[in-house]
Amino acid sequence: MMRVVFAPDSFKGSLTSVQVSEIMEQAFLAVDQDAETILKPMADGGEGTLEALSKASDPQKVSLTCTGPLGEKVESSYLEFEDRAIIEGAAIAGLPLVPEAQRNPDNTTTYGIGEAISHALNRGHRELMIAIGGSSSNDGGLGMLQALGMKTFDDEGKETEGFGKDLFHIKRIDFSSIDSRLKNTTIRVASDVDNPLTGPKGASHVYGPQKGASEEQVLTYDQALLDYGTLVEKASGRAVMNSPGAGAAGGLGFAFLSIGASLESGARLISEAIHLPEEIQGADLVVTGEGQSDEQTMYGKAPGYVAELSKQHNKPALLLSGSLDGDYEELNQVFTGCFSIVPGPRELTECMNHAEEYLFKATKQVARLILSFAK
Amino acid sequence: MMRVVFAPDSFKGSLTSVQVSEIMEQAFLAVDQDAETILKPMADGGEGTLEALSKASDPQKVSLTCTGPLGEKVESSYLEFEDRAIIEGAAIAGLPLVPEAQRNPDNTTTYGIGEAISHALNRGHRELMIAIGGSSSNDGGLGMLQALGMKTFDDEGKETEGFGKDLFHIKRIDFSSIDSRLKNTTIRVASDVDNPLTGPKGASHVYGPQKGASEEQVLTYDQALLDYGTLVEKASGRAVMNSPGAGAAGGLGFAFLSIGASLESGARLISEAIHLPEEIQGADLVVTGEGQSDEQTMYGKAPGYVAELSKQHNKPALLLSGSLDGDYEELNQVFTGCFSIVPGPRELTECMNHAEEYLFKATKQVARLILSFAK
Repeated sequence: MMRVVFAPDSFKGSLTSVQVSEIMEQAFLAVDQDAETILKPMADGGEGTLEALSKASDPQKVSLTCTGPLGEKVESSYLEFEDRAIIEGAAIAGLPLVPEAQRNPDNTTTYGIGEAISHALNRGHRELMIAIGGSSSNDGGLGMLQALGMKTFDDEGKETEGFGKDLFHIKRIDFSSIDSRLKNTTIRVASDVDNPLTGPKGASHVYGPQKGASEEQVLTYDQALLDYGTLVEKASGRAVMNSPGAGAAGGLGFAFLSIGASLESGARLISEAIHLPEEIQGADLVVTGEGQSDEQTMYGKAPGYVAELSKQHNKPALLLSGSLDGDYEELNQVFTGCFSIVPGPRELTECMNHAEEYLFKATKQVARLILSFAK
Repeated sequence: MMRVVFAPDSFKGSLTSVQVSEIMEQAFLAVDQDAETILKPMADGGEGTLEALSKASDPQKVSLTCTGPLGEKVESSYLEFEDRAIIEGAAIAGLPLVPEAQRNPDNTTTYGIGEAISHALNRGHRELMIAIGGSSSNDGGLGMLQALGMKTFDDEGKETEGFGKDLFHIKRIDFSSIDSRLKNTTIRVASDVDNPLTGPKGASHVYGPQKGASEEQVLTYDQALLDYGTLVEKASGRAVMNSPGAGAAGGLGFAFLSIGASLESGARLISEAIHLPEEIQGADLVVTGEGQSDEQTMYGKAPGYVAELSKQHNKPALLLSGSLDGDYEELNQVFTGCFSIVPGPRELTECMNHAEEYLFKATKQVARLILSFAK
């Protein structure tokens, strides 16, 4: 009997990673009803991380009311699983939660993420895993740090709020009042970017525009984050503005670094949380997938990490992709085989609309081939 | 060591079956240099049959000067292989040999095919295999039968020539002078169509237009073939106008039937000629392919026949196709796995232009998968 682990990423724009894993499983079972299938949908720390975790493990969902990206109250949730709290930033202050017309770094905040952390600390958690991808803010984590107790003051000594636009008025920062429980808390943040907080490769320049920053705002925010970051560095005693990933999620990476969190590969963090390495160890075959692949898939992306893990355990890993581009044969360093699900000359929209059918059928053919040769 | 037989059809419009088999072989050897590869490019009796046979077997080429489709002298050739002569009609009187502006059933003839048969008989052959697909003529095999000794006369008792337009003047046929060696000769004709000589499903109606017949010519030729066929039937003593395949190749099928030839599946005839069944018996894997596949691939097409043969010998057969359409999963009745070579959403012209690259890369991925599971 063949034991198959399905650990795909999403097919962005058409199928979530949970859907992909279920379609793949159905295809395998259609070929071999005795196959033992294990669903471990993956994520890389962006939107969809909680959904993937919910399917792969058996977590408890904790509901909370907290501050949304625009300062309004929102209902959100995080997960509890094996003494660990898992928070998805995008589920609290993510870009999809902000209507396109209102996307403006002036008016967004990460405050709710700090509230969720507080909430988890209150419930006794001292191990946190946080996915910060898909953020709507460029506040350098100002809101989050405030929610955790940091105080910021303007030139009149008045406390400021935690929106992006407040960065321009901060003259003094008090870090002493920050939640003391954080000292005994391990925070691991899923982040796969190397950007520093400021400069040409910083948060404002690289990610500002997609969050609604104008050309002028990119420049003023880059300066504001430099001033703010300098104050936070002094107050926290941690010089982390130029650490890789400080510029992740509008500078939220920097804020996490300044409270002692570690930034780690999202794929690695999540695969650990869902015990993927252990499942791969016991598998005969590992199947992953994503919407679009090229040689970069090996670096930091979920399918590449799944294949790395498989290789470490000497298990064959397959990639089923919406599109194999560039030097995709490089992927054979870690993948046994890479297959496109597209059955012939087809336009992109046709492929998107038929993603489920194409994936199901292509997986069946691959499964037939394997089962015919695996004795 | 894995023994792999490559027996693809052509990818029409981009790669010949010989090219396809060579690309597939190179891909397998790139993955496993110890693989034992056997190239048996296939054909179905149309254009390209001789090329495929030359690659798959070790025939001798016999050159001859004979009559081309428009009555001019042409240099052509046929093959000798294991006491058998193999003649490709398309190489003597094929549609591609007639410039598009000159395509007109009035002016084309199958005379050269009869000359090639005569030539082979002179060399002592009494086993002939003839591929008749891809013809340019609608002469009911008049030219060919004349070259073999049949005489036709007009209402003044004058002998007529062997072009399509001569059909309209034939009033009497003398079959007694036909080459007596034909009686002791086995002629097997590759033909995969069921059309009768005349009528709505006959040669003129179904295939006339693609050979340049006008709407009016379709009707006059249908009548002319009926008159001519009736005379030939009487003269030969064989009532074969309505036999399946009489309408193949502009009625050339009828002419062959009237001299006692058998019409057989092209894929079967050719696979026998190249000893494909024996090679499949000794193989671990059979790989075939074609430009476009759907559930019809099972019926009479070369890849479908290759898969049938493989199934009979209990060997896995793979299909690598330019496009998997329709209910292609039906093909799993005979194919272990069906794979498209297209790596993602791509337009048809892009796929045609990159056919070699796509085929090479897709074959490599399939080979990697097989070799990883075949122990």
